[in-house]
Amino acid sequence: MTNKIVISIDAMGGENAPAKCIEGVALFIKKNKSNDFIIQLHGEEENIISELKKNNIYKHDQIEIFKASSVVSDEDTPLTAIKNSKDSSMWNAIEAQTKKNADISLSAGNTGVMLVISRMILKMIDSVKKPALAALWPNEKGFNVVLDLGANVECDENNLVEFAEMGAALFKSIFPNEEPKTALLNIGSEEMKGTETLKKAFQKLDIVSQKNIFKFNGYIEPNKITYGESNVIVTDGFTGNISLKTAEGTAKFITDNLKKYLLSSWLSKFSLIFSYFSLKKFKERLDPRRFNGAIFLGLNGPVVKSHGATDSLGFYYSIDLCYKIVRGDLMKKIKANLNE
Amino acid sequence: MTNKIVISIDAMGGENAPAKCIEGVALFIKKNKSNDFIIQLHGEEENIISELKKNNIYKHDQIEIFKASSVVSDEDTPLTAIKNSKDSSMWNAIEAQTKKNADISLSAGNTGVMLVISRMILKMIDSVKKPALAALWPNEKGFNVVLDLGANVECDENNLVEFAEMGAALFKSIFPNEEPKTALLNIGSEEMKGTETLKKAFQKLDIVSQKNIFKFNGYIEPNKITYGESNVIVTDGFTGNISLKTAEGTAKFITDNLKKYLLSSWLSKFSLIFSYFSLKKFKERLDPRRFNGAIFLGLNGPVVKSHGATDSLGFYYSIDLCYKIVRGDLMKKIKANLNE
Repeated sequence: MTNKIVISIDAMGGENAPAKCIEGVALFIKKNKSNDFIIQLHGEEENIISELKKNNIYKHDQIEIFKASSVVSDEDTPLTAIKNSKDSSMWNAIEAQTKKNADISLSAGNTGVMLVISRMILKMIDSVKKPALAALWPNEKGFNVVLDLGANVECDENNLVEFAEMGAALFKSIFPNEEPKTALLNIGSEEMKGTETLKKAFQKLDIVSQKNIFKFNGYIEPNKITYGESNVIVTDGFTGNISLKTAEGTAKFITDNLKKYLLSSWLSKFSLIFSYFSLKKFKERLDPRRFNGAIFLGLNGPVVKSHGATDSLGFYYSIDLCYKIVRGDLMKKIKANLNE
Repeated sequence: MTNKIVISIDAMGGENAPAKCIEGVALFIKKNKSNDFIIQLHGEEENIISELKKNNIYKHDQIEIFKASSVVSDEDTPLTAIKNSKDSSMWNAIEAQTKKNADISLSAGNTGVMLVISRMILKMIDSVKKPALAALWPNEKGFNVVLDLGANVECDENNLVEFAEMGAALFKSIFPNEEPKTALLNIGSEEMKGTETLKKAFQKLDIVSQKNIFKFNGYIEPNKITYGESNVIVTDGFTGNISLKTAEGTAKFITDNLKKYLLSSWLSKFSLIFSYFSLKKFKERLDPRRFNGAIFLGLNGPVVKSHGATDSLGFYYSIDLCYKIVRGDLMKKIKANLNE
C-alpha cells in the first residue's frame, strides 16, 4: 500500500483508444492539482508514450506505464477473452489491484468481458451473493446512485438488500456530505404493489434501515427517480437496465426533436443567438459525460466501466469518479454496511 | 347492433368531471363532421345536461344520456366498488356494451376498479389467458403500440405471444395503412439475452410470425423504442409499467430543465419571441394529450382508460381513439389473429 490513490487504467479500451483515454488523463492532471494520486496506464507502450507526448505529460511523475501484450476486442466473449487475454491491457489493469498496489481499475472496453474477468481476478466479497453494476443518474438535487443496472437478470430479496447496503456505501463515498436515502424501484408506492420478491425485500430493508446506516423510503416509482427525495435506487439488473435504457432513449428522442424544431425556421435559428448561453447550460446540466462510469460492486476491489463511445471529457469524469470513490473509502464503507 | 359507432362514456370519471369530459365531447363533435357515431353519456343527469348546455350541444341528435346513481371514487378499491357500484357511471358505461349496443367504453376514473369490473362484465375472450393494458407511444415515424403496461405483474411466454397478437390487431385497427411490426422488449438484442420467459416467447413468436399476420423483429432494447423500426412493443406488465413511467419522468425532467434555463436570463427570455412557433410545434409533437388513452385488451369488448388528470383536449383524443378502434374493427382483428 502506498499513501497515494492509485488508479489503474486500461488505456486501450473503447473507441479511439488510447488517444481519448490519455487526453482524459491529461485533463484530470490539469484539473486536479493535488499530488495524492498515481495513474497507472496499461496497454501498448509505444502508442501510450506517443499520446502522452502529444499531451505534454510524458514522464510525468504521477503516471506509470505498464506494457500489455494484447487488447480485449468488442467481439471477444468472456470465454475467448479468458483464453487469450491473460496479458491483455484490461486483465492487467484489473490485476494491478492484487499485484501493483492499485486501489481501483478503470476500462472503457468490452463490458461482458470486464464483468467476468473482474470477478475471476478480484473474487467476490465473502458475504455477498451477487455483484451489481451501479451508476449515477441526475436528479433535481444532484445525483442518484442506481443499481443493479444489468449484472444480474434475476435477483432475490437478499440480493436487493445487499445492493441497498453497497449502493448506500457508494453514495456516501462519492458524496460524503449527503445522507444516503434508499428506495426500491416498483410500479406503485403502496405496500401491496409489485412482485413477491419486492414485497419481501421491502420487509427486510425496513428492518435493516433501523440500524441507521441509511434511510429507507419504501417503494419509488420510476417517474419519481429524478425528484431527489431518494438517492439510492435499488432494483434487479433486468428492471434497472430497462429503466436506464428507456431514460437514455427518451432523453435522446426529446433533445433530437428540440434541435430539429429549433433549426426548422430562420426565425428560430436566429433566436439561438439570444438563447445560446442558456441552452448551453441546459445541455451541460444533462450532459451524459458528466456521469460517465458504471461501478461494479461486490468484489474485493472497485472496478469502473466507462462508456466505450465517450470522448476525452467523458473519460476525465470517469477518472474523477475513481478518484472520489477511493478517497471516500468505498471498500471500507461497503464492508461496514454489510457487517451491520 | 346499430350501423353507427356507439361510444359509451363514463362522464363522471377523473378530475374536473363531468366538465372536462363534456368539453371533450363537444370538441369531438366539432372536429368529426360525420354522423356515423353516437356518444352515450353515463352519470349524474342534471350535471351532464348543464355542461351540455354550456357547450351548446344539449339535445344533439348524436348524444344520449343515461342516468347513473353513483360515482366510483379514487379511494374505492375493486372490492368496495363492486359492492357499492352496480349502478355507478363507470359500471353502466361498461355494461352498455352488453345492454345498450355500445361498441366501446371510455372512462377517466379509477384504473384498478375499471380493470376489475370490465373483466366481470365483459368476460375474457375464451382463448385469452390474461388481459393487457396497451397504449400509444410516440416514435420517429408516428406511434408504437406498447403492451402490457401494468395489468399483469407476471407473465409467461404464452401471455406474451397473445399480447403480440392483440397488440398487432390494435395497431392495424388504429393505423389501417401501416404494417404491424412486433418486438419483445429486452435488455439486449442478442438471442441469448434476457429471462427464460423471454427466450421461450422469442421462439414462439418466431413461429407465429411465419403465418404472416405480423412481422416479428426479435428483441428491442428500450433506447430504440422511439426509432419506429418496430411498432408493437411487447412486454410483461411490470417491465412495461417501469419503462412507461421512466419515460414520463425523463420527459418531464428534461422539459422542466429546458424551461428553467430558457427563463433564466432576460436574453434567453427575449429569444422566445423568435423561437415561439418552433418551440410550440416541439411541444405539440410531444404533447402527452395527443396519445391519451390506454386500451384494455383481451375482453369481449374494448375498454379505454383516459388519464384522470387530462383536460378536455386530452379527453377529445381518447374519444377519437375509441372512434378509430371501432371503425378499424378491433375485435374482429383480435379474434382473427388469435385464431391463426
